[in-house]
Amino acid sequence: MKFCKKLRFGNFGPICQKVALAALGLLVVSTLNKIAAQEQSKDEDALFIQRIFDESLTEKQAHAWLGELCLGIGHRLAGSEGDRKAVAWGLEKMRSMGLDSVFAQTCQVPVWRRGAKETAVVLPTFSRESMPLKCLALGGSVGTGPSGVSGEVVEVQNFEELEKLGAEAVRGKIVFFDRPFDPTQLNTFRAYGGAVDQRGQGAMRAGRLGAAAVLVRSMASGLDDWPHTGGTYYDEKSPKIPAIAISTNDAERLSKLLKTEKNVSVFFKTDCEIVAEEAESANVIGQIRGSDRADEIILVGGHLDSWDVGQGAHDDGAGCAQSLDALRILKKLGYRPRRTLRVVLFANEENGLRGGQKYAEEAARKKEKTLAAIETDAGGFTPKGFGFDAEKAVFPAFFEKMKRHEGLFLPYGIQFNKGGGGADIGPLKPQNALLIGLQPDSHRYFDVHHTENDRFENVHPRELAAGAASLAALLFLIDKYGLE
Amino acid sequence: MKFCKKLRFGNFGPICQKVALAALGLLVVSTLNKIAAQEQSKDEDALFIQRIFDESLTEKQAHAWLGELCLGIGHRLAGSEGDRKAVAWGLEKMRSMGLDSVFAQTCQVPVWRRGAKETAVVLPTFSRESMPLKCLALGGSVGTGPSGVSGEVVEVQNFEELEKLGAEAVRGKIVFFDRPFDPTQLNTFRAYGGAVDQRGQGAMRAGRLGAAAVLVRSMASGLDDWPHTGGTYYDEKSPKIPAIAISTNDAERLSKLLKTEKNVSVFFKTDCEIVAEEAESANVIGQIRGSDRADEIILVGGHLDSWDVGQGAHDDGAGCAQSLDALRILKKLGYRPRRTLRVVLFANEENGLRGGQKYAEEAARKKEKTLAAIETDAGGFTPKGFGFDAEKAVFPAFFEKMKRHEGLFLPYGIQFNKGGGGADIGPLKPQNALLIGLQPDSHRYFDVHHTENDRFENVHPRELAAGAASLAALLFLIDKYGLE
Repeated sequence: MKFCKKLRFGNFGPICQKVALAALGLLVVSTLNKIAAQEQSKDEDALFIQRIFDESLTEKQAHAWLGELCLGIGHRLAGSEGDRKAVAWGLEKMRSMGLDSVFAQTCQVPVWRRGAKETAVVLPTFSRESMPLKCLALGGSVGTGPSGVSGEVVEVQNFEELEKLGAEAVRGKIVFFDRPFDPTQLNTFRAYGGAVDQRGQGAMRAGRLGAAAVLVRSMASGLDDWPHTGGTYYDEKSPKIPAIAISTNDAERLSKLLKTEKNVSVFFKTDCEIVAEEAESANVIGQIRGSDRADEIILVGGHLDSWDVGQGAHDDGAGCAQSLDALRILKKLGYRPRRTLRVVLFANEENGLRGGQKYAEEAARKKEKTLAAIETDAGGFTPKGFGFDAEKAVFPAFFEKMKRHEGLFLPYGIQFNKGGGGADIGPLKPQNALLIGLQPDSHRYFDVHHTENDRFENVHPRELAAGAASLAALLFLIDKYGLE
Repeated sequence: MKFCKKLRFGNFGPICQKVALAALGLLVVSTLNKIAAQEQSKDEDALFIQRIFDESLTEKQAHAWLGELCLGIGHRLAGSEGDRKAVAWGLEKMRSMGLDSVFAQTCQVPVWRRGAKETAVVLPTFSRESMPLKCLALGGSVGTGPSGVSGEVVEVQNFEELEKLGAEAVRGKIVFFDRPFDPTQLNTFRAYGGAVDQRGQGAMRAGRLGAAAVLVRSMASGLDDWPHTGGTYYDEKSPKIPAIAISTNDAERLSKLLKTEKNVSVFFKTDCEIVAEEAESANVIGQIRGSDRADEIILVGGHLDSWDVGQGAHDDGAGCAQSLDALRILKKLGYRPRRTLRVVLFANEENGLRGGQKYAEEAARKKEKTLAAIETDAGGFTPKGFGFDAEKAVFPAFFEKMKRHEGLFLPYGIQFNKGGGGADIGPLKPQNALLIGLQPDSHRYFDVHHTENDRFENVHPRELAAGAASLAALLFLIDKYGLE
């Protein structure tokens, strides 16, 4: 401010004025040069990003790798045989890509087994036949044992309704949580967020009131015949009761029946168990070491584990294949990063988050500087945005810096949004990393999520490739310009 | 400019100054009020658009109507039984919606019949078995007759290569056009545009050089087993030779074979024919009559006809259902337009464009003022943009006006782009209408386009609904603010 005041021309003599004018001239020229350089740099960046997309859409390498994972290994619940194979696959893949310091960062994971195929049925009456229900035991649920569980069904929409009914009305019965997704949420993850408490806490809440078991309407956007599994959790205080998800079509049928008939009873049998002893799994890590700023890490990753149905194609084989491919693309184009670009295939996202926690602990222990962490765990669909998050103190500056790059992504239909990240990278937040989540089109995600139908053939090669390219482009820009 | 000069305060006495200050004050207040009103209006518009999306995503009416068209009627090539049923369906639908002045605007359409299922095979040699080719006769092609056609295959990538080979090398042979889509085009319509001359003019160009027949690599983004039909055209000068499309997988196989083997011959048989007599079809038209500016028409439409394979679900049952639904949504929300909102389900887009031409002729004859025409004929996928086009003289002002509304669409992932429109509304361009095309995500479109696989189950209810809502929102804004 003081400097500005001194520069007012009226305060200078003629010579001073000439000097000031010359200085001003230099300033203008240098500013114009700077602007021109920035423009040129922007054009160069746009061209490089175009090359990234060209490479990805032409090679479709992410899709080929996803095929290996889905068709060669299949589903891979933490601690399972599939999980072990996937870790080996990840290590081999990173080595064959020529990444630096490839290693498995081991961690302990909880073990849950589904056992024999579950069955559920609405019990018959004198005037009506039995009605089978398409179901899956919820992950983490206790089993019913060989004799199964049966009871009268009590339908509720939410926990308030459950509490209002109280223990008297619920004891010994089967509580049916039936609140659907809010269809008006354009982003289906929001609708999921508004419904998933039923799956996560339903068994715990109903168990506390003495219920015998729980049915949960599948976490799905639409009406179909696929039951969706997913984690359910107990606390120490309450009895652990068995829980299954039923398909949305069956939930509709059951709900309709409950409106016209009294004492509707359901029987179901699940063979699942929480195994007392934990198993070993691992985060799979590789990187391209940076040149002059190698100690600054920019991470991209997805999770290697999946639920134990289908092939974990969208969730999250897609993210693993894209993360690997992002680094492959940059290597292929001869890009030499200043900072270290690291890919992490996280362990045990679905039922424990142990991989993400382990990674953050180790990063803290080694005093690593994680500049930014990008997670892709929202399906292999057409990318529509990146969501950004960070600790309050650092977020505004980070986001402002990132927003400057948005113009380079708009031609690809990608917007930069506040709020994002991912479950695996969440534990890095206190380390002041910028957390970023790839946000693909979400309309189809909850059709396949956690179902038998989350299979390779439902992932589109071009949509997956566009996501991989978006990740590579963002890695490139954060590496080139940093976050200061 | 003059007014500004007079307002310089130095030219006024003290009283003049007070008057001027008061006037300035009023101006500032009125400007602020105007800005506030604009802001409020923007908020109101955003809220109304939110209600449009809520209604569409909740009801999913477009999807239910598309089901009627696809499952109840099926494919509907111009002049066919399906076409007649579809016209009746459109009229009934518009009447049941309570639209004004619903009518069928008849037009003559060319008739082409596929006849019995076509077959094609790479002929066997002593050292190799025959190789069947998945094929479809191209629409508008002459048939081979019962004895079929056979000949040695000559592969070319484009017309330059064909011309270079010349009549000598081509005479009596089967020319195989095998140029694939450019995978680096993010928008697959661009890739289609870069390849479709092979399908449209291949037979004409090869026929001119004396070829016996033509094979065309299917117009598809990826590698699969679906042959894609579509229009091919002859001129008067050249002999009409038969033409089929083969699946991209078969095109790859054949091309590989041609690299390792000499004198590869193909036989194919098609039963199709160009019928001399034309048939009657119709544009189906309905509207909501405007209040004070009823003579200004804002049109939304798709085409009711389809190719004679699959169900014409994405092409363009989706567009018909969305166009109808856009008006249903506005009616349902109680919106009373100032201008006339008209829905047109065009006839014969696929192989003649007679519907679009007829509509424009009639509009000119009746001296109608078409303010804007929106076409949705790019698949029922997630909407990503609107493309705008108009005569050069009026385009810049139109586009600038429209760009002001873009901010209301960005939260829905929809950008406003230069260049667009649609085949059916194209003939309205000389009438100074603003032409608008809905631009959905295009990655999956050329997987199903013109194939047996363009079926109802491949259209997603939420993606279709989001498109219908986008159309309703744009109709609303053009009606409210006009284009002046």
